[in-house]
Amino acid sequence: MARPKPQDVRLIASLGAGPIGGGWSAHFLARGYDVVSYIHDPAEEAGLRSLIETAWVNLEELGLQPGASLERHSVTNDLEAAVAEADFVQECAPERLDLKQALYARLGDSVRSDIVIASSTSGLTMTEIQVECSTPERTVVGHPFNPPYLLPLVEIVGGKQSSPDSVAWVQAFYRCAGKVPLVLPKEIPGFIATRLQEALWREALHMVANGEATPEQIDLALINGPAPRMAFMGQCMAFHVACGAGGMATNLDQFGPTLKLPWTRLEAPELTQELRDRMVNGCNEIAAGRHFEEMVEERDRAIVAILKAVREIKGGSR
Amino acid sequence: MARPKPQDVRLIASLGAGPIGGGWSAHFLARGYDVVSYIHDPAEEAGLRSLIETAWVNLEELGLQPGASLERHSVTNDLEAAVAEADFVQECAPERLDLKQALYARLGDSVRSDIVIASSTSGLTMTEIQVECSTPERTVVGHPFNPPYLLPLVEIVGGKQSSPDSVAWVQAFYRCAGKVPLVLPKEIPGFIATRLQEALWREALHMVANGEATPEQIDLALINGPAPRMAFMGQCMAFHVACGAGGMATNLDQFGPTLKLPWTRLEAPELTQELRDRMVNGCNEIAAGRHFEEMVEERDRAIVAILKAVREIKGGSR
Repeated sequence: MARPKPQDVRLIASLGAGPIGGGWSAHFLARGYDVVSYIHDPAEEAGLRSLIETAWVNLEELGLQPGASLERHSVTNDLEAAVAEADFVQECAPERLDLKQALYARLGDSVRSDIVIASSTSGLTMTEIQVECSTPERTVVGHPFNPPYLLPLVEIVGGKQSSPDSVAWVQAFYRCAGKVPLVLPKEIPGFIATRLQEALWREALHMVANGEATPEQIDLALINGPAPRMAFMGQCMAFHVACGAGGMATNLDQFGPTLKLPWTRLEAPELTQELRDRMVNGCNEIAAGRHFEEMVEERDRAIVAILKAVREIKGGSR
Repeated sequence: MARPKPQDVRLIASLGAGPIGGGWSAHFLARGYDVVSYIHDPAEEAGLRSLIETAWVNLEELGLQPGASLERHSVTNDLEAAVAEADFVQECAPERLDLKQALYARLGDSVRSDIVIASSTSGLTMTEIQVECSTPERTVVGHPFNPPYLLPLVEIVGGKQSSPDSVAWVQAFYRCAGKVPLVLPKEIPGFIATRLQEALWREALHMVANGEATPEQIDLALINGPAPRMAFMGQCMAFHVACGAGGMATNLDQFGPTLKLPWTRLEAPELTQELRDRMVNGCNEIAAGRHFEEMVEERDRAIVAILKAVREIKGGSR
């Protein structure tokens, strides 16, 4: 049986009931697909449906595909039934290697051999995950950014046994599905976006550990400084444009020597109890008693507003 | 003579004709102040006025203070005349220590001793800058983020000879002037926002150097991944909220061990010719022939749109 064309995918199996699995289900439903969610435990169904309904409000605001409907969603705790007819499988199981390896051993036999299986893993490599899979050539990483129903990024990379065809197919498919797919040149721990975020995060932890900034100051600095700019143009182009006609060349020629300055630290701090408490307490102070669901809702409305604003500026392309 | 109250400031001297000096002038004009710009060379006046007029379009979109007008702007190349009547001085001279030290020696005598002088320096410390100033107690760092007429952040920190009163005054003043002031607990190289950005930037350079990502992929990853979220809530709160009811505690307890993983590198890469070229060429490819002014204008419209969107979500507070 031939693999469906990326644009011919109709039914997607999303494996997992957490924020990532539920987020993918919501996204695919909004893009007009039929979606079957596999959940490990029937008790998870209510939470999954609630998560998707909450996401739906923002997805409607961003704009649904014609025909998109929550009625095209089904839920099962029968893994083989979930994947039997699927044109594509998005795996969102917990982030444990032994568990993922066992799951891929099972999926390797139960998912039709022409169908691509993409893992949402953020910390494992497909080379590790696919070792017990009998049909590893169609398994790849398709790593979303949280929340997956709003942020367009998907990082794609195959393992040692993945075929280039599978990587190319899933890139084309994600584009059809309204995502911004990035194919990584190499399997690299943390992929691209998380590595960037992690560098910033480790420096933030150092500053908090050393009493040089509070979590609130870290966030205020980002929100009112680099982040609004970064949301529109990233960091390379922010520097490029800021340097006028000389662009990045001027930036590197002029500011290159500052790379030698100790403007950031170079090892992760010891996660002491004290550091942990400062981070926890700082965040709790900012939250000021608000419940996390309230903040999630607010966050999502903000991301929608920002994405719509950026989209308008860029002239309609997502 | 007593220092004016922060809310009673009427006339501001902005020293410098570059993007930072011009940006500060535009911001203060939009907030309804009288502004006198000091320029080193009369030939800089046309460029300065053009920069402010360009900024004005976006400042009108964000909303001017009643009475704000470009007619309340004057330009002079007489330093003593520029600062003679000023209620506050924002210094934006080139980023060279010898030059700033000589300037502060002169300002120390010519600016009324009750008036606060804030430096826009991004890489020097006030302890270094103020060494030849006869009245160093009223000199502080007030570091904006580019473009200063749109991004609200100002990082404040005194030098060894700065008085706590001056730091407190300038914090209150910047708040009156529509900025988000952050008082740093310590004089730290790069301050807060630049350190965070620099950590991310060094990791980006490593990835490009190693062939793990292109500049375009770096920017796409940021724009479609962490940045829209970061623009609304920073990074601490992004993790806090993503972890549900457990918040930052869950984040650190669950993901703390990943700090030991090599998810980012720990020293700046050698800025080889090859790396330099990859960065330059990558940015040029993204720019695709567009002139930088066009991209600056687009960037600014985007930042306005994002700031307005975030402001609306947050309920009217800037």
